[in-house]
Amino acid sequence: MADGRLFIGTKMYSSWSLRGWLAVHLAGLDVEEVVIPLAGGSTAAVKEATPSGTVPYLEHRGAKVWESLAIVEYCAEFAPHLWPADRAARAWARSVAAEMHAGFRPLRQNMPMTILNTRAGEGATPEAMADVARIDAIWSQALEASGGPFLFGAEMGAADVMYAPVVCRFLTWRPAVSAAAQGYMQAVRAHPLMQRWYAEAAAEPAEWRLPQYEAPKP
Amino acid sequence: MADGRLFIGTKMYSSWSLRGWLAVHLAGLDVEEVVIPLAGGSTAAVKEATPSGTVPYLEHRGAKVWESLAIVEYCAEFAPHLWPADRAARAWARSVAAEMHAGFRPLRQNMPMTILNTRAGEGATPEAMADVARIDAIWSQALEASGGPFLFGAEMGAADVMYAPVVCRFLTWRPAVSAAAQGYMQAVRAHPLMQRWYAEAAAEPAEWRLPQYEAPKP
Ligand SMILES: N[C@@H](CCC(=O)N[C@@H](CS)C(=O)NCC(=O)O)C(=O)O
Ligand SMILES: N[C@@H](CCC(=O)N[C@@H](CS)C(=O)NCC(=O)O)C(=O)O
Repeated sequence: MADGRLFIGTKMYSSWSLRGWLAVHLAGLDVEEVVIPLAGGSTAAVKEATPSGTVPYLEHRGAKVWESLAIVEYCAEFAPHLWPADRAARAWARSVAAEMHAGFRPLRQNMPMTILNTRAGEGATPEAMADVARIDAIWSQALEASGGPFLFGAEMGAADVMYAPVVCRFLTWRPAVSAAAQGYMQAVRAHPLMQRWYAEAAAEPAEWRLPQYEAPKP
Repeated sequence: MADGRLFIGTKMYSSWSLRGWLAVHLAGLDVEEVVIPLAGGSTAAVKEATPSGTVPYLEHRGAKVWESLAIVEYCAEFAPHLWPADRAARAWARSVAAEMHAGFRPLRQNMPMTILNTRAGEGATPEAMADVARIDAIWSQALEASGGPFLFGAEMGAADVMYAPVVCRFLTWRPAVSAAAQGYMQAVRAHPLMQRWYAEAAAEPAEWRLPQYEAPKP
């Protein structure tokens, strides 16, 4: 018997779910995965199953945890190495994680996660590109200080978890980014858990596809 | 010499700043306060002084921390009692804190913080009122489980810090809320730090007032 359940949305599209899923796996929590196909707006089954009407949602040993960042913090209590050991570096990592959690709305709206598609050059509104520039700066500064290949050092950590769906977006929409950002995107994409997420997304039933997120047929 | 500096915006209007300021004071950090009058959009002096172009921003013993939730987490490392001691309650508190950090955009847009004004009944769009209902549910459930008067018990904690500006908004815009929510708002408003914030807001120079947030003259 597992210690609980992790509710997530369609792997093709559910950017926030990817965060909860990565955190739970990096921390080694033993939970059963429940995938709810997203309807592309307010999904009745998500409303039913979760306190906030959103995925990801984690039930674990009597705790009920929603919001990707809260799930990340919860997992980090079991796996403290998800945050940097140094107090100032940890504060930095939490700042960029929280900035992602609250912000970058134009990017999220114009470059939605749709991980098996390539739509190079689309979605690049001025507001979305301002977000891209800020994210590039966040990544570049952290990578320069830590030496990479992940934001705060050798291993994928909590800040990387928060930015992993942004990597997926950039791989689909291909906005121009710095060499440092490109190297980082490759490191994230090559992580075994990301490879698994992409493979499982590719194996999802065709009827879970949402036309509004798929590239128009040529 | 203080251990660092806390940068905040105009106390009348800066909802996010109130969070950083409460957290720093509840944790007893010894920092100098730097108030930057907000211009009501992108403030040049805020851009200049902070990594993300936003207040609150904390510099403390070599750490640089921005985003209100990251500042709250940083302060809680010095004052662990800001989060509940019980693992499941702590996960709950972090969930509602993160939900506030990422969400409730209609509320924030339609009922901005402007703490010396009363504008009862205005701003009550359907989307803003849906946010009010969700916040009322969050407060009521936590208060019922903890016994109050604060969300997770006897003392003001991290979750209360995140919702304190919402209390200010509700005191200005007066949406209809449950009796439990009303009692909670009174408890928050009566806290000595909130009394001090309101008094300091009232003492701010008249030229810091922004017409767009002030009630129209009758
Ligand atoms: N801030 C939340 C956002 C979660 C969220 O919006 N999730 C979307 C899916 S990616 C959702 O559940 N939407 C409701 C739905 O699709 O039914 C978090 O960090 O978990
Ligand atoms: N998510 C951020 C939001 C901070 C924020 O937007 N602060 C506003 C003032 S309340 C700001 O600095 N805006 C830029 C400006 O006014 O110049 C946080 O939690 O700190």
